[in-house]
Amino acid sequence: MSAALKTRLFDELNSHVLIDPHTHINPHSPASETLADILGYHYYTELAHSAGMPQSRIEDATLTPKEKVGRLVEGLGHLDNTVQLSWLLEAARELFGVELDRIDASNWESLYDAAQKKFDQPDWEEQVLRLSKLEAVFLTNDFDDALEGFDTGRYVPCLRTDDLVFHLAKPAVRQRLQACSATSIDSLANLQVALRQRFEHFTAHQVRACAISLPPHFTPQRVSDAAASSALDKVLAQNEEASEQERATVGYWIFWKLAEFCAEFRLPFDLMIGVNRAVYPAGVFQGQDLYDSRVSLIQYRELFNAFPSVTFPVSVLASVTNQELVSYAWIFPNVVCNGHWWYSNTPSFIRRDLQARLEAVPRNKIVGYYSDMYKLEFALPKFAMFKRCLASVLAEHFVESMGWSEQRAVELGLQTLRGNVESLFYAQSR
Amino acid sequence: MSAALKTRLFDELNSHVLIDPHTHINPHSPASETLADILGYHYYTELAHSAGMPQSRIEDATLTPKEKVGRLVEGLGHLDNTVQLSWLLEAARELFGVELDRIDASNWESLYDAAQKKFDQPDWEEQVLRLSKLEAVFLTNDFDDALEGFDTGRYVPCLRTDDLVFHLAKPAVRQRLQACSATSIDSLANLQVALRQRFEHFTAHQVRACAISLPPHFTPQRVSDAAASSALDKVLAQNEEASEQERATVGYWIFWKLAEFCAEFRLPFDLMIGVNRAVYPAGVFQGQDLYDSRVSLIQYRELFNAFPSVTFPVSVLASVTNQELVSYAWIFPNVVCNGHWWYSNTPSFIRRDLQARLEAVPRNKIVGYYSDMYKLEFALPKFAMFKRCLASVLAEHFVESMGWSEQRAVELGLQTLRGNVESLFYAQSR
Amino acid sequence: MSAALKTRLFDELNSHVLIDPHTHINPHSPASETLADILGYHYYTELAHSAGMPQSRIEDATLTPKEKVGRLVEGLGHLDNTVQLSWLLEAARELFGVELDRIDASNWESLYDAAQKKFDQPDWEEQVLRLSKLEAVFLTNDFDDALEGFDTGRYVPCLRTDDLVFHLAKPAVRQRLQACSATSIDSLANLQVALRQRFEHFTAHQVRACAISLPPHFTPQRVSDAAASSALDKVLAQNEEASEQERATVGYWIFWKLAEFCAEFRLPFDLMIGVNRAVYPAGVFQGQDLYDSRVSLIQYRELFNAFPSVTFPVSVLASVTNQELVSYAWIFPNVVCNGHWWYSNTPSFIRRDLQARLEAVPRNKIVGYYSDMYKLEFALPKFAMFKRCLASVLAEHFVESMGWSEQRAVELGLQTLRGNVESLFYAQSR
Repeated sequence: MSAALKTRLFDELNSHVLIDPHTHINPHSPASETLADILGYHYYTELAHSAGMPQSRIEDATLTPKEKVGRLVEGLGHLDNTVQLSWLLEAARELFGVELDRIDASNWESLYDAAQKKFDQPDWEEQVLRLSKLEAVFLTNDFDDALEGFDTGRYVPCLRTDDLVFHLAKPAVRQRLQACSATSIDSLANLQVALRQRFEHFTAHQVRACAISLPPHFTPQRVSDAAASSALDKVLAQNEEASEQERATVGYWIFWKLAEFCAEFRLPFDLMIGVNRAVYPAGVFQGQDLYDSRVSLIQYRELFNAFPSVTFPVSVLASVTNQELVSYAWIFPNVVCNGHWWYSNTPSFIRRDLQARLEAVPRNKIVGYYSDMYKLEFALPKFAMFKRCLASVLAEHFVESMGWSEQRAVELGLQTLRGNVESLFYAQSR
Repeated sequence: MSAALKTRLFDELNSHVLIDPHTHINPHSPASETLADILGYHYYTELAHSAGMPQSRIEDATLTPKEKVGRLVEGLGHLDNTVQLSWLLEAARELFGVELDRIDASNWESLYDAAQKKFDQPDWEEQVLRLSKLEAVFLTNDFDDALEGFDTGRYVPCLRTDDLVFHLAKPAVRQRLQACSATSIDSLANLQVALRQRFEHFTAHQVRACAISLPPHFTPQRVSDAAASSALDKVLAQNEEASEQERATVGYWIFWKLAEFCAEFRLPFDLMIGVNRAVYPAGVFQGQDLYDSRVSLIQYRELFNAFPSVTFPVSVLASVTNQELVSYAWIFPNVVCNGHWWYSNTPSFIRRDLQARLEAVPRNKIVGYYSDMYKLEFALPKFAMFKRCLASVLAEHFVESMGWSEQRAVELGLQTLRGNVESLFYAQSR
Repeated sequence: MSAALKTRLFDELNSHVLIDPHTHINPHSPASETLADILGYHYYTELAHSAGMPQSRIEDATLTPKEKVGRLVEGLGHLDNTVQLSWLLEAARELFGVELDRIDASNWESLYDAAQKKFDQPDWEEQVLRLSKLEAVFLTNDFDDALEGFDTGRYVPCLRTDDLVFHLAKPAVRQRLQACSATSIDSLANLQVALRQRFEHFTAHQVRACAISLPPHFTPQRVSDAAASSALDKVLAQNEEASEQERATVGYWIFWKLAEFCAEFRLPFDLMIGVNRAVYPAGVFQGQDLYDSRVSLIQYRELFNAFPSVTFPVSVLASVTNQELVSYAWIFPNVVCNGHWWYSNTPSFIRRDLQARLEAVPRNKIVGYYSDMYKLEFALPKFAMFKRCLASVLAEHFVESMGWSEQRAVELGLQTLRGNVESLFYAQSR
C-alpha cells in the first residue's frame, strides 16, 4: 500500500466536522480541568495498576491533581508501547502544543503546566471541539437525568438503561425512578407508567438514542405480564434477596418494554453486547470489567424479529463476534454495525473488523466510530486512530484492489463517519 | 508485497481450466436467461432488503424480469461497497462486455439489453464455461433427482442429504423417498433399504460426493438400531408432532448410515458446518439463514474416528472455526479443508483463513474454492476473487517470505484449485 | 512495509543471547543423536500421517534411525508448504550447513550423513546452543524427577503438574508420588505433605516455574478440605473407577493447593489452556490431541482473584482466545501473555496475536516466545520464525505507523524476548 495514498485519504477524512455518537461526557463539565482528569482516565489507571502500581497508590483520595499525575507518570514507562498511551501523546501534541516521545519524570511537570494554561482559558471547551472537528457529542444519561442546563444540540441526550434492566432490585434505583417520574413503583402497571414517562421526558429534551450494555449471557425474551408481575412482587418485597430468576424475569420484561418504547418513540436502541462487570473487584475504578467472548447474536434473534421498526446499532466487545455482526447486519434490515468498543478499540482489531464490515455490509448500515470518551480531549486522538485504520482499508482494499477513485473512497469513509450518524440517529428531524 | 508479482501469479493461476466442486447449478438450465436471474441471486435481494427495500417490492410475483431488475437497481447504491456487488460488475465486464463503475438508473437498461443479447445466443452456456475456464461443475441434487437428461461428466451429481437427516418427519419427504426408491418407508430396515437404493442410483450416475449442511448444535453420534427404530415409529405416527428428541434420534441414525454408505460406496462426505435456518423468517427467499459461531469440530470427534476410510471435505460458516479446521486437517487423515463458505466468502476472511491453511495443512488436503453458484455466470467473478486472495498469499508468504520461486508457488496454488479436486473426488476413476 | 527495515530489525533482534522459557528438553540428552530424532518430532510424523502415511509405517519399532528417516521422507512432499517443514530446512542450513529447497529421495541421505557428522562431534550440544544464541532453556520435569546430573543454570527445572491434577486416580501416579516424597498417599493431609515436599525438592534445585496444561472445560475452584477428603477416599479406594465428579474434585483441590504453594514458594504458575487429549486415538505418538476453541478466561476469574501474588504466564491454544488474554493481561496485574502455543505457533496467528498484545498490554507483561522443543536443534528455526513476526510488527506498527526509532523498537522486542523472562521467572534471584 502506498503510504502517500493513505496519508492523502486520512487528510481528506480528517478535514470534515463530525458528530460523536457515543460518549460519557458530562455536559456540565465537558473538558478537563487538570491533567489529572486525563491521566485519571481508567485506561491509564488500570494499565498502570496492571503493570505493577498498587491500587492504593493510584486511588489515594488525599492527593492533589498534580500529585496524582506525578504518581501515575511513574508507571507510564511500562505502557509506552500501548496505543492507549499514544492517545495521550497525540493529545499533548495536537491540543496542548507539547511534542513528546515519552512522558517521564523529566518532562511531566512542564506538560502539566502547559496543559493547565490551556484548561484555564475560558473558551477551552470551544477550542477543543474546534480542534477536534466535532459539532456534537452524544451523552450517556442516567434515566433520572434532568437534562437541563446545557445545549442539547451540542450535547445530545441518550437514555442509558442498564440500571433499569439490571438493578431495579436495588431500592435506591427504584427510589430514583419514583422520584423522577412521580410514579410509585408498586406494580407492573405503574412501572410501565414510569418508564413511559421517562421516554416522554427524554423525547422532550431531544434524545437521539436509548442505550444499554449487556452481559454475555443476556438473551432477550418476551415475558408475559403475569409472569413479570409475579416476579416484580417478589423483587419489591425482597429487593436483592429475590431470586436470580425473579430479578432476571423483571429485567427481561423491562428490556422488552424499552424496545417497545423505542418503537413508539422512534428511537434507535444501542446494544453494547458482551461485558461482565466486576470480574476483578480489586481493580481500580472502572478497571474491573472483562468478558466471556462466547456470546452470539443468535441470542438476539427474537428481539430483532419482534421489532422490525427499531434500529439496533450494535457494538460487540470482542472481535470474535464481529463476523456475526457483519452477517446479521447483512441480513436484518434493523441491525447496524456501531463503532469499535473498548477491548476491540485497538488498531489491529479495528482494521480487521472494519474491513470485514466494509466488504459485506450495505454502506448505509455502518456507523464508523464513537469515542466513548469521558473528557473532550480524547476525541481527537481516538478518532485519529480510527481514521488511520479507515484510510488504510480505503487505500488498500477500495483504491488499490477494487480500483476505486480516491474521491469515491473518501465518500464511503465519510458516510460511515458522519452521514450514517445523521441518517440513523436524526431520522425524525434532519 | 510487489503488486507486479501478485499480478503475475494471478495471471498464471487464471490461465488454467478448473472443476468447481460445489454449486447449486440446475443442469437443465445452467446459464441465466435474463439479468433477473443474476440480480435475483439471494446476495442481491437480501442485501437490498437489508439496506431498506421492502420484501414485497422485491418478491412481487407479477413482475416481469426487467421490472424486477429495475426495482433492485434502486437499492444497489447502498451496496456498492460490497464485494458481492463487485461480482456483478466483474461479470458484466468479463462476460457481457459492459464496463461499468456503478449500476444505476442511468445505465441498467443498456446492461440489461447487452446481457440479453448474450443470453439469447444458442451457445451461451458453452461460452460462459469457456470464458470461466470451467470444465465441470458439481451439482447439489435432491435425493430423488432422476439425474437424467444431462451430461454427468460436465454436471457432476452430488447427493444432498439435508432433507433426509432433518426433514424425514415431513410426510412429503417420506413420500418422495418412497416414490424414488420404490420402498415403503415403514420400518428402520426399509428406510435403510431406501437409503441404499439412493446410493446405488447416484453411483450409477457418476456421483462424486455426498453432502449436507449442518446446524451449529449438530453432534453426530452412533444410535442403536433399537433406539432408532423406536424413534422412527413415533415419527411415522406423529410426523412433525413427534418430539424433538425422537426426530433428532432418527436424524442421527440416518446421518451415521449415510457415512456408512459413503464408506461402502467410496464417496467423500462434504460437511458444511454451522448454519441456522430461518433465523429471520421475514427475510427474502434464501436470505433468512444465519448462525451461532459457537461451534466446534470436537462435536465431530466420534464421526472422524469412526470412519477413517471416508474423506470429509469440511466447510465452516464462520472464520472463527477456521483454526480448528486447520488443526483437525493437520491431525486427522480424513479431514480436508474445503473452500470458503457463504458468510466467510469475502476477501479478508478468505485471505486470513487461506493463509492459515497453507501454512500448516498438508498441501494435498486443501480444496481451494468452490463457487456455490446458482447460475454459471457467477463462477468467473467468484473464482477471480479467490484467485486474487490466493495470489496474494502465494506472493507475500511463499515467494517473498519463504523464498520460493514463482513457479513453485503457482504449482501449490494449482494443486489447491484443481489437483486436489481430482485426487479427492475422482479417486476411483481418474 | 520496507523489507530492508524489517531485515535490519530482525538482524538486531537476532544478535542477542536468549533464555527459552518452555521446552521439553531432556537435560541428559539435549541434542539429537541422529536425524531420526529430528524427523521423529511429532510435527513431522503427525503431518506425514495426516497426509496419507499409515501409522504402522511410521511407528514400526524395528526400524533403524536411517530407515525411519527414509520412510518419513517419502511423505514430506505433501508437507513442503508447511511452516513446520521450513523449520527443518532452516535447521539443515543453519546448523548442518546443508542448503536445500526440498528434502526428497534424491538428497535425504546426504543430509542424513552431513547431520550425523555434526551430531557425532563431542561438543555438538555446545555448538547448537551457541549457534542458537541460547544461554538457558527451561525444562518440563515430571514431579518425581530427581533433578540431578545436569547444570540447573543451563537446564532450568520447571515442575510440570498435569499428572497430579488429572491422573492421581491412577495407582502408578500415586506410587510415584509416594516414592519420591517418602510420604504415604493415604489421606488429604498426607497428600498435602507430599505436594509440599515436591515444592521443597524443586526449590532446592533452582526451579523457576510450576506448569500445567489444561483442557477447555477446566474451571479452577476452591474445594473445601472436607469435600476433597471425601472424594480422595473414593479415589484411593476405586482408582479410575471413581466417579468423574470425585476425580475432578480431587483434581481441583490439588490445583488450588499448587497455586497456594506457588504463592508460598514464590513461583510463577504457567497455565497452558485449552487442550483435549487423545481426540484422535489412532494417531501417531503425540499426534492425537486437539481442542474445543470454546474456552474463556472467565473460567479463571476466581483463581486470578484469589492469588494476587502469583504470576500466571498464560498460553492459549487457539488464536480466538488471544483477545481475552490481551484483555485479562491488561486488567489483572498477575496475568502475563506467554508465547504462541502449538496450533497457534504458525506465522499468521503469531503475527496477529502478537500485534494485539503489543498494542494494548503493558510491555513488562509479554513473554515473547518459547520453543516447546524436544531437541535443541529446533530452537534456532522456531525462534527465527518468531523473530521475523516480531520484526514485522515492530517495523510496520511501531516504526512506520507510530514513528518510533528503530532502536526503541528493538528495545521493546528484546524486552519481550529476554528482559521479561528474567524479570518474571528470576525475580527472586537476579
